Amino acid sequence: MERILEKIINKNIKDITLGEKASYIPELKNVPDKLGISIMTSEGTFSAGDAGYRFTFQSMSKVLMLMVALQDNGYDYVFNHVGLEPSGDSFNSISKLDFNNVIKPYNPFINAGAILTASMIRGSSYDEKLSRVRDLAECIFMRRDIGFNDGVYTSERDNANRNRALAYLLKEKGLLKGNVEEILDLYFRICSLEVSCTDLASLGHLLAFNDEKCGIDMNYLRIIKTLMLTCGMYDYSGEFAVKIGIPSKSGVSGGILSCVPGRMGIGVFSPRLDEKGNSILGVRMIEELNEELGLNIFV
Amino acid sequence: MERILEKIINKNIKDITLGEKASYIPELKNVPDKLGISIMTSEGTFSAGDAGYRFTFQSMSKVLMLMVALQDNGYDYVFNHVGLEPSGDSFNSISKLDFNNVIKPYNPFINAGAILTASMIRGSSYDEKLSRVRDLAECIFMRRDIGFNDGVYTSERDNANRNRALAYLLKEKGLLKGNVEEILDLYFRICSLEVSCTDLASLGHLLAFNDEKCGIDMNYLRIIKTLMLTCGMYDYSGEFAVKIGIPSKSGVSGGILSCVPGRMGIGVFSPRLDEKGNSILGVRMIEELNEELGLNIFV
Amino acid sequence: MERILEKIINKNIKDITLGEKASYIPELKNVPDKLGISIMTSEGTFSAGDAGYRFTFQSMSKVLMLMVALQDNGYDYVFNHVGLEPSGDSFNSISKLDFNNVIKPYNPFINAGAILTASMIRGSSYDEKLSRVRDLAECIFMRRDIGFNDGVYTSERDNANRNRALAYLLKEKGLLKGNVEEILDLYFRICSLEVSCTDLASLGHLLAFNDEKCGIDMNYLRIIKTLMLTCGMYDYSGEFAVKIGIPSKSGVSGGILSCVPGRMGIGVFSPRLDEKGNSILGVRMIEELNEELGLNIFV
Amino acid sequence: MERILEKIINKNIKDITLGEKASYIPELKNVPDKLGISIMTSEGTFSAGDAGYRFTFQSMSKVLMLMVALQDNGYDYVFNHVGLEPSGDSFNSISKLDFNNVIKPYNPFINAGAILTASMIRGSSYDEKLSRVRDLAECIFMRRDIGFNDGVYTSERDNANRNRALAYLLKEKGLLKGNVEEILDLYFRICSLEVSCTDLASLGHLLAFNDEKCGIDMNYLRIIKTLMLTCGMYDYSGEFAVKIGIPSKSGVSGGILSCVPGRMGIGVFSPRLDEKGNSILGVRMIEELNEELGLNIFV
Repeated sequence: MERILEKIINKNIKDITLGEKASYIPELKNVPDKLGISIMTSEGTFSAGDAGYRFTFQSMSKVLMLMVALQDNGYDYVFNHVGLEPSGDSFNSISKLDFNNVIKPYNPFINAGAILTASMIRGSSYDEKLSRVRDLAECIFMRRDIGFNDGVYTSERDNANRNRALAYLLKEKGLLKGNVEEILDLYFRICSLEVSCTDLASLGHLLAFNDEKCGIDMNYLRIIKTLMLTCGMYDYSGEFAVKIGIPSKSGVSGGILSCVPGRMGIGVFSPRLDEKGNSILGVRMIEELNEELGLNIFV
Repeated sequence: MERILEKIINKNIKDITLGEKASYIPELKNVPDKLGISIMTSEGTFSAGDAGYRFTFQSMSKVLMLMVALQDNGYDYVFNHVGLEPSGDSFNSISKLDFNNVIKPYNPFINAGAILTASMIRGSSYDEKLSRVRDLAECIFMRRDIGFNDGVYTSERDNANRNRALAYLLKEKGLLKGNVEEILDLYFRICSLEVSCTDLASLGHLLAFNDEKCGIDMNYLRIIKTLMLTCGMYDYSGEFAVKIGIPSKSGVSGGILSCVPGRMGIGVFSPRLDEKGNSILGVRMIEELNEELGLNIFV
Repeated sequence: MERILEKIINKNIKDITLGEKASYIPELKNVPDKLGISIMTSEGTFSAGDAGYRFTFQSMSKVLMLMVALQDNGYDYVFNHVGLEPSGDSFNSISKLDFNNVIKPYNPFINAGAILTASMIRGSSYDEKLSRVRDLAECIFMRRDIGFNDGVYTSERDNANRNRALAYLLKEKGLLKGNVEEILDLYFRICSLEVSCTDLASLGHLLAFNDEKCGIDMNYLRIIKTLMLTCGMYDYSGEFAVKIGIPSKSGVSGGILSCVPGRMGIGVFSPRLDEKGNSILGVRMIEELNEELGLNIFV
Repeated sequence: MERILEKIINKNIKDITLGEKASYIPELKNVPDKLGISIMTSEGTFSAGDAGYRFTFQSMSKVLMLMVALQDNGYDYVFNHVGLEPSGDSFNSISKLDFNNVIKPYNPFINAGAILTASMIRGSSYDEKLSRVRDLAECIFMRRDIGFNDGVYTSERDNANRNRALAYLLKEKGLLKGNVEEILDLYFRICSLEVSCTDLASLGHLLAFNDEKCGIDMNYLRIIKTLMLTCGMYDYSGEFAVKIGIPSKSGVSGGILSCVPGRMGIGVFSPRLDEKGNSILGVRMIEELNEELGLNIFV
C-alpha cells in the first residue's frame, strides 16, 4: 500500500507549483508548497509525502460542525433550518438566499449553511462551544495537541465581510439565533484548527466505518457521507462524483477529506487550487488512488 | 389654492385607515393616522390637514444624503460607486448586488446605494458628519429645531440585519470605506430626523427652482430630480411616472416629497402603505393635485 | 438652426468609425457609415448630414407598436399584460421573466414586452395588421413609399432564436395569444421598415406636441413619452435621463428617436453602437443639441 | 421476496388517492390510480400490484437518451455541451440558462439538458433516430411490442411552450444543432413510450450490473448511475439521497426507476405526485424496500 502512495506522490511532485493558492484570505498565500497523502484502513494508517504537515481545517471542518450540530439538535431541527440540496452555485453565493421563496441555505456545506450549523453548537459559553468541537477533533484524530493557526484566524476574521453579510441575512430571515460576531468568531476559529493528512484519514475512517467511538450517531455519519458526495466539492461536486465517486470534502487550504464506505479514510494535501476552489493535485491524487484500488462507490 | 388642498384632504380623510403601516420597523406601527398636504410655490406656502405633524424622514432623506455626497465628492466619484439605473427590484434587494458582473448598487435611492452615499459624507467625526446633514436640513426647512425620533432610530438600528448584510457586501466589494456600524448608525440617524409636510414642500421647492441658497450646485439638484422620477417610488416608479409624471421620493413613514420643475414643491403624509411601500393616500393626493393643476412634466 | 446642426455633424464626422455595428443580425454589419440629424419644430424641419438616408426601424418601432396596441386595446388591457417599470436588465433578458413571481414583461420596450404589444395589434389577417402599422407610419412620416429591408428582415427572422424563446415563454405564461411564428414575423417585419432621420423627427414631433392627426389619443402619446424617458435607451436609460433628460428611443440599427415636449422632434443616425446597444454618435449629437438649445425636461 | 413486495403494496394501497396527478400535460390527468412494484435481481424478477400496467416513460427516458447520446458521441462531446452538476432548481428552469456566464445546461436530467442529449442521437432520419432508441428499449425490456401513447404525445407536444423556449435558447447559444421542432418531436415521442414497472426493473438491473448486453459501454452506465443519485429526483435529489441513498430517476407519469449497484433494479409506479414532481407512493415504496433490505449505497 505504501508503495502505491509513494508512486502517487512521485508522479505529482513535479506539478507542485501548478495553480494558485487561495487569495481571499491573505495569510493562505504564504503556505509553502507541500504534497501529502494518507489513508487509514482496518489494517492501519499508510502515508507518503508531507502527510504530517499541518494546514488549516477550513471547509473540511464543516463536516465536524455538522456532526456536533446534529448530535446537539437532532435531524429535524437541523434540517428545518438548512437544506439537503446541492446548490449549483459557488460556495459563498448570496443571491440564492435572497429570493423570497428561498427560506433556508441549500445545504450545510455552503458557507451560509455552515455558519448556521456553527450557531447550533451547544454550550454555555463561547469557550465551551469551541472546546466541544476541539474535544471531538481530538477524539477522532487521537491526539491532544490540536492547535489553531492564529495568523489564518485573524486574517480570515478581518476579511470576512461576505460571510458577515451572509450571517446578517440569515439573522434577518430568523434562521440564525445568537450574536452574529460571536458565531462568526467560532466559525473562523474552527476553520483555523490545524490538521494533517493523517488527521483527515482518521476522520474519513470514522465516516467510512460508521465508528461511534467519539459519540456521533451512525445515522448522522451516513447522512454526512451522502452530503459529501452530493455537495462536498463546491460546484465541482457533480463532476467529481461522476469521475471519482468517493464522498469527499475539500477546503481552500488545499486539503481534501475522503471516505470510502466500508474500506478506508483518505486525507490529501497540496495548497494550490483550481478555479472552483479545490486542490489541483489533491483531486488528482484521489483520482489516481481510485484507479489503483477501485474505490468508486458506483461500482 | 388652499381651497384645492382642503378639498383633497376632505375627499381622502374617510379612507385614512386603508392599508397597513410599515411593519419592518416595529416603532413605525405606532404612528397615529394623520393626513397632511403642503405646497410651496413662488407665492408662498399653502397647507391643509396635518401639514405640521412631524414624522420620520426615512427614505426621503436619501435625497439629502445624495446632495451632501455629491457636494462633497463630485459627480464622477459618486457615480463611479453607485449607478444611475432603476433596478426593477424592491428597495432592499440583495440578489442584484451579488452577481459577479454587478459592480455597484443600481442607484442611490435603493438602500444599498443610499448606505454608500451616507458613507461618502465628509467630516472629521461622526458628529460632524451628522451635523452637516442636519445643518443642510435646517437651511432648507428654514427652522433650527429639527429633532430625531429616538424610538424609531433605536428600533431601526436594532432591526437592521438586512441593511447590515448589504453594507458588509458593499465593503467586501471594496465600495464602502470606513466602519460599517458607524456608517449604518449615521444612516439610521438621518432616517430618523423628524420632518413635516411643510418641510418636504420646502425641500421640493429648492429642487423645483434649483435654489442654490443652501450651497448645493444646481446641476446636482437637476440630477436628483431626474433620479426621483426614474427611481423615487421603489418598484412603482415607472407606473407613477406614467400616471402622474412628477419627480417624487417616498418613505416608509408615509411621507412623499415631490417637486414640479419651475412651479412648486410638494409634501404629503399619511402613514398607511400599499404593498410596494408607498403611502396610499399620499400617492392619491399627489394624483388629485396633478388633476387639479396639471403638473405632469410630460405635457 | 441649420447652422447648429451642421456644426454638430462637422464636429462628429471624424469619429464616424468609432465603435462596432450591431452583430447579432448579420445583415446589420453591412450598413455603411453615415451620420445624420434632423429636427422638426413648429417652424419646420431642419436637417444636416445624411438625414435622408434610410435605415431599419428596429427597436424604435416599439413606439409605433405600442401606439397601435394602446389604440386597439386600451390602457387597462395592454398594461395588464405588460408592465411599466424599467427592468434594470439588458433588452433581451429572459431570466426576469422566469421567476415564479414575475407575471409579465417589465415594460413594452424590452423585447418580451414589444413582442407582446405586436401580438395585440388588431386585424383580420397578417397582411391587415401589417398594413395598419404601415399606414400609421405613412401618416406620421407624411410619405407613402415606406419600404421594408428584406435582407435585414430575413437575417433577423433567421437569427431570432432568443426572441423565439421569449415568445414561447410568454405563450406558456398565457400572456401571448395567437400563432407565435406569425407574431414574430409581424414583429420582424415592422422592425425592418426603412426610416430616415426626418421620419424620426416627424414621429418625435407628433409625440412632442400630442398631435392626434393620425388618430392616436393624446393620453397614449403622453404615456409613451414617459416610457421613452424611463426605459427607452436599454440599460443606459437612467444615465441618459440624468445626463440629457430627453425622452428617447434607440434601435440597434443606430437610429435614435427623441422628443422634447412642446418644442421639437429629433431624429439622429449613425450605425456604430456602444456596449449597451445605443448609437455612439447618436447619443453624442443629442447631447450636443441639448447643450446648444437647453432641451433637458428637468429644467 | 414477493411477500415483502406484497406487504409494501398492501401498506400503501389505502393512500392511493393522496396527492395530485401531473397537470401540465392534460392527458396525464386521466391516468387511473394504480400501484405497482417490481424488482429484478440475479435470481429473477419479482412483482406485486399493478406491476404490468403501462404508463408513459417521461423523464425516466432521459436515462435512455443519455445512454444513446454517450454511445453515439462519447463522454467529451456530450459533456462539453451539458454539465454534470445538480442545479438546485426545478426541472424546467430557464433562468439559470440565461445568465451570461452559464454556458450549458446544468445536467442531462433537467429538461434543457435532456433536449440537448436527444439532439445528439445519431440517425440519417427522424425515423431512424426514433428506431434506435426504441430498439435499445426493446433489448433492455426484452419485449418487442413497445408502443407509444399517442394521446400523451399529442398533449405534450401541444403544451410544450416552455420546452420550446428552452430549445430555442439552446439553439441561440449554439449548443443545439438541427431542427428544433424535429428534436422536440423526437423528445416527446421518446417520453411517450409506454413502459411498466417490470420494464423499469429491467433497465435498473442493466445499470446495477453494468450489463453491456445491449451495447452500452459500462463506463457510461456508471456515469448514469451517479447522475441518477445526484440529479435524478428533481430538486428533491439531495434529500432523497440522504434518506434513501439509491440512484433513481423519476418521471411525472408517476414512475420511478432505481438501481442498487451489484444487487437489483427496481421499478415502481403510482401516478399522484408531490409538489416537487415525484410519485408520493413511489418514493414511499422505495423507502420501505430500503428499510426491508438495506439498499442504501452509503452503508
